[in-house]
Amino acid sequence: MYNVMVIFEPEGRKVAVPLGSTVLYAAREAGIGIRSECGGKGYCGKCRVIIKNKKAVSRMTRVEKKHLSKSEINLGYRLACQTRVFRNVLVIVPKESRLETRKVLVTGLERRVELKPTVRKLHLKLPKPTLLDQRPDLERVLDTLSEQVKSDKWNIDYEVLKRLPDLLRDADWEVTVLVDGNRIIAIEPGDTSNYLFGFAVDIGTSKIVGHLVDLTTGKTVAVGSIENPQIIHGEDIMTRITFAMANNANLERLQKLVIDGINKVLYEVCQKARVDPSRVYEVVAVGNTAMHHFFLGIQPKYVALSPYTPAVKKSISFNAKKLNIEVNRRGIVTVLPIIAGFVGADAVADVLATGIYESEELSLLIDIGTNTEIFIGNKEDMLCCSCASGPAFEGAHIKHGMKAVTGAIEKVHISSDLEVQYETIGNVKPSGLCGSAMIDITAEMLKNGIIDTHGRFNSNIETKRIRKNNNETEFIIARSNETATGKEITITQKDIREIQLAKAAIYTGCSILMKRKGIREENINTVFIAGAFGNYINPVNAKIIGLIPDVPTEKIRFVGNTAVTGAKMALLSEEMKKKAEFISKKVRYIELANDPDFNKEFVEALLLPHKNLNRFPSAHTGVVRT
Amino acid sequence: MYNVMVIFEPEGRKVAVPLGSTVLYAAREAGIGIRSECGGKGYCGKCRVIIKNKKAVSRMTRVEKKHLSKSEINLGYRLACQTRVFRNVLVIVPKESRLETRKVLVTGLERRVELKPTVRKLHLKLPKPTLLDQRPDLERVLDTLSEQVKSDKWNIDYEVLKRLPDLLRDADWEVTVLVDGNRIIAIEPGDTSNYLFGFAVDIGTSKIVGHLVDLTTGKTVAVGSIENPQIIHGEDIMTRITFAMANNANLERLQKLVIDGINKVLYEVCQKARVDPSRVYEVVAVGNTAMHHFFLGIQPKYVALSPYTPAVKKSISFNAKKLNIEVNRRGIVTVLPIIAGFVGADAVADVLATGIYESEELSLLIDIGTNTEIFIGNKEDMLCCSCASGPAFEGAHIKHGMKAVTGAIEKVHISSDLEVQYETIGNVKPSGLCGSAMIDITAEMLKNGIIDTHGRFNSNIETKRIRKNNNETEFIIARSNETATGKEITITQKDIREIQLAKAAIYTGCSILMKRKGIREENINTVFIAGAFGNYINPVNAKIIGLIPDVPTEKIRFVGNTAVTGAKMALLSEEMKKKAEFISKKVRYIELANDPDFNKEFVEALLLPHKNLNRFPSAHTGVVRT
Repeated sequence: MYNVMVIFEPEGRKVAVPLGSTVLYAAREAGIGIRSECGGKGYCGKCRVIIKNKKAVSRMTRVEKKHLSKSEINLGYRLACQTRVFRNVLVIVPKESRLETRKVLVTGLERRVELKPTVRKLHLKLPKPTLLDQRPDLERVLDTLSEQVKSDKWNIDYEVLKRLPDLLRDADWEVTVLVDGNRIIAIEPGDTSNYLFGFAVDIGTSKIVGHLVDLTTGKTVAVGSIENPQIIHGEDIMTRITFAMANNANLERLQKLVIDGINKVLYEVCQKARVDPSRVYEVVAVGNTAMHHFFLGIQPKYVALSPYTPAVKKSISFNAKKLNIEVNRRGIVTVLPIIAGFVGADAVADVLATGIYESEELSLLIDIGTNTEIFIGNKEDMLCCSCASGPAFEGAHIKHGMKAVTGAIEKVHISSDLEVQYETIGNVKPSGLCGSAMIDITAEMLKNGIIDTHGRFNSNIETKRIRKNNNETEFIIARSNETATGKEITITQKDIREIQLAKAAIYTGCSILMKRKGIREENINTVFIAGAFGNYINPVNAKIIGLIPDVPTEKIRFVGNTAVTGAKMALLSEEMKKKAEFISKKVRYIELANDPDFNKEFVEALLLPHKNLNRFPSAHTGVVRT
Repeated sequence: MYNVMVIFEPEGRKVAVPLGSTVLYAAREAGIGIRSECGGKGYCGKCRVIIKNKKAVSRMTRVEKKHLSKSEINLGYRLACQTRVFRNVLVIVPKESRLETRKVLVTGLERRVELKPTVRKLHLKLPKPTLLDQRPDLERVLDTLSEQVKSDKWNIDYEVLKRLPDLLRDADWEVTVLVDGNRIIAIEPGDTSNYLFGFAVDIGTSKIVGHLVDLTTGKTVAVGSIENPQIIHGEDIMTRITFAMANNANLERLQKLVIDGINKVLYEVCQKARVDPSRVYEVVAVGNTAMHHFFLGIQPKYVALSPYTPAVKKSISFNAKKLNIEVNRRGIVTVLPIIAGFVGADAVADVLATGIYESEELSLLIDIGTNTEIFIGNKEDMLCCSCASGPAFEGAHIKHGMKAVTGAIEKVHISSDLEVQYETIGNVKPSGLCGSAMIDITAEMLKNGIIDTHGRFNSNIETKRIRKNNNETEFIIARSNETATGKEITITQKDIREIQLAKAAIYTGCSILMKRKGIREENINTVFIAGAFGNYINPVNAKIIGLIPDVPTEKIRFVGNTAVTGAKMALLSEEMKKKAEFISKKVRYIELANDPDFNKEFVEALLLPHKNLNRFPSAHTGVVRT
């Protein structure tokens, strides 16, 4: 195979790839993160790169011409997924095409948990064998162990038993035993009982977030996160599932990527806290059902195809080495249970963290993402559903949408003279709009009469910020001289439609669950909004556009990344693991598509805030100027 | 490294070995079995080979001169362990130096056992998933499984779960589940519930004996055996332990050899019964404590050194793949528990097989070997000990001693005119004497006054069969024209001493246990004699020489290889595994060396039958002619 050299700027990183490879492939090989929501199929147009030497690469395709303007083409813009390299070439990756460090919530709602982890360490001083005490090595350990912990059903892993005689004698009969229930999973020489760490990890579609916890104190000693490395095979989960469906090699590749990512976060937190990774003995992992399957290397295809059946619901534990998780080689991994194909272990962790399953009061819990999971109920009964809210709030399918990373506009206010104020993440020049900005913009435009309850632009409004572009109306949020890209950031009629679809999906989920449960807004004591995205939403604006039910603002609690909090609780306490299992069994999953009212509800919820304004008495008052 | 070629005759097998290698090493490399009781140290003198070209090999050592006669040296005899090769050379391995197929008891005492094996197969027809039944794959399996077997604590191995979604769909929702307790260890497509086999194996120091059992019927479908391949590192266990003590590589080599041997027996029985080895799902293994450790790859050094502590006593189970046992890759291996450093899982199996631990009546159980294990007691209380009876009865340390293989004299009668009648194994010309012949010879010589109660030759007896050789008196059993080797087979004064030492050790064990238990011969209901060797012993002669207590002959039962029978019972029944564990805990081990009477007892037992003739009222009556 003949190789050509591709150099990526500004890093100057070189990579040799087979002649005819795409630039996107070369970027992956070089470890350069390029946005590719569609996984390299030419649908999203996000993987723009600049190539000056046209002769080194393939001719421009139709797909590229659709996504790029003439002036861009003149500047050398190409789509990395469409462009194949035939000679050594230099590729510039512009800012807007880069996968960047995303702002993420790594701390969540901390609830008090009794410190009683599944893995425990016991320091033992063993009596030495004599002719009058010829007890075998293992029984000697078990007898001493049983003085501290009662059990007559001790088991030992074969690998530990195998090395026991030399270990005990080399340690001069003073050892520390690591137990998991009634199973001995490791024996270490000397007293190491002060070194007992655990790692809680939320495997998100976009981010992997990990907390390192000292299991002797219950304290979180370091937190870390990383972009999910699977993103090179598509930003959305369906693209990745499609990739994995093709063959087991692809599935294994995705599994390896996510495990590599977890190991990176593990090393990051261990470095921060100066903890030897071999002192980490348990990992509790959560993630949506697809990530749960990817992590375990289980084919996720049947989760994606009707009737959407996952492989397993209950919690499972196994040796960390089986997945090459680089904690102690005798350590264990526990994956919390899931509820259904679209309600995963992360959602179970949400419920565990908020405690709504053991409260007398009725709560509504919404974890917003591409799939939004919604729970309603209390200790008596819990219902849940999953809404295909889509990736709009994460920046996809929105002209200037982007994830909540540095440079994203996250807050927007439109004054009565239709001027715009905004804040960007990292206080830098803006590059695009993240989800919370979209909610603000929609609400502010509605309040100021720029759009009507149907989401249509009001043709009577006159401002230079509204203009036609390619036959589509758009509103300018940031002018070209204000932005990092030198291009205007706008919100289009189509963008508004996407936001309406997303918010209608979420609200429909809430309203169908409320109907099934036979309750109204006033019965709800607390609305928990979870997800890394959630913390930046303006709750009033969320009600104004009809994203969430109209409850008093003081009843709305943003709880951040409750998934990792729930995972951490399970790490700290065996009891919490049992509660997670209980939640997984107790919660009744409602398939929205099966509800006879679904279509009607959804169509009505497309309006801003809703067709039935009685549902939003506080929100719509005095909102519509026209 | 410069290699030379060694050719072994009569096979004509060639092997290239580094210049200066011993002939014994070359034979091992060539796969030629040469006797080497001492493991190649020059002590035993059994590894005789004939080399015509003296210039191709090293000069004769002092050790060789000690073991070889002048005429043998002239014929080209050398010891393979002492002779190093420096040129291409032809080596003849004479019959008497060969490791041959040994006669072995593979069936034992069959007791009735309720068929309820640990591993079970359940054929399941699963309802297909629909939008109204979205249960996950595993829960679908568990729900259907629970209709047949009640358990709410089902576990599944990660490896099985990982492949579950495709497996269920490929099998069109009809599968067979293999369970071990509440753990699912395998799932197979279709109905395979009729194919469920187990393998019981007794890992002896000399032989590996295996029974293939159909676990759906409880029937033994094939039996097989092999010389323990570890024999190339020494016939006796201490030589092997010494080898393993040197380093872990040696230990691993010995482990690999025994596992290779087990796999060979497995393939042998599977071929005989035409059973696919992947249909074998459980292996139950027994062996003495050292073999138990070798099998598990556990350093046996501390079993051999004071205070003789084994690594583990309790039964252990693990995945067969961990030890490369070539049954089903999800199959399990269970090693039965041991009692002490010199009372292993094979002895536990003896007790299980004979049922003496649950009998009202008092029994004595003697499993004769290099180490002889003795049990006494009933359901109330059991004592045991181990006697270093030595390898005399297995042919070692006896001038013309050999194992019970083809060509060994196994029965001997000496008539009053001092003529000898004998029977050989396989009805061929004799090559030497096996253990049962030694008992007969000692008893017959005693009865005929050829030796006295002290084991001394009677100088008053006149017969051509008695002669002096190298200043030692010996008695000719077979004349040179009768034997396979063309050399006389004799029993020497030194041989008689060795036999006295062996029988005294065994009887002392019995008498100390009887004393500790406070019982006499008349209290014993049954004497069980176990071990492959045991079946050929003449019980009257055994009493005449004082090998076993003087009980009526009808109370003596030869039960053969009860070790493999016990292993098979544990394979057939979970309950029997629990009983083995019970035996291991209940039996009290007596360290003979700690008994104050040991030395006195032993010295008195050296006499034939005993110093105190009151102990052998039936045996000694009319025995001594002088």
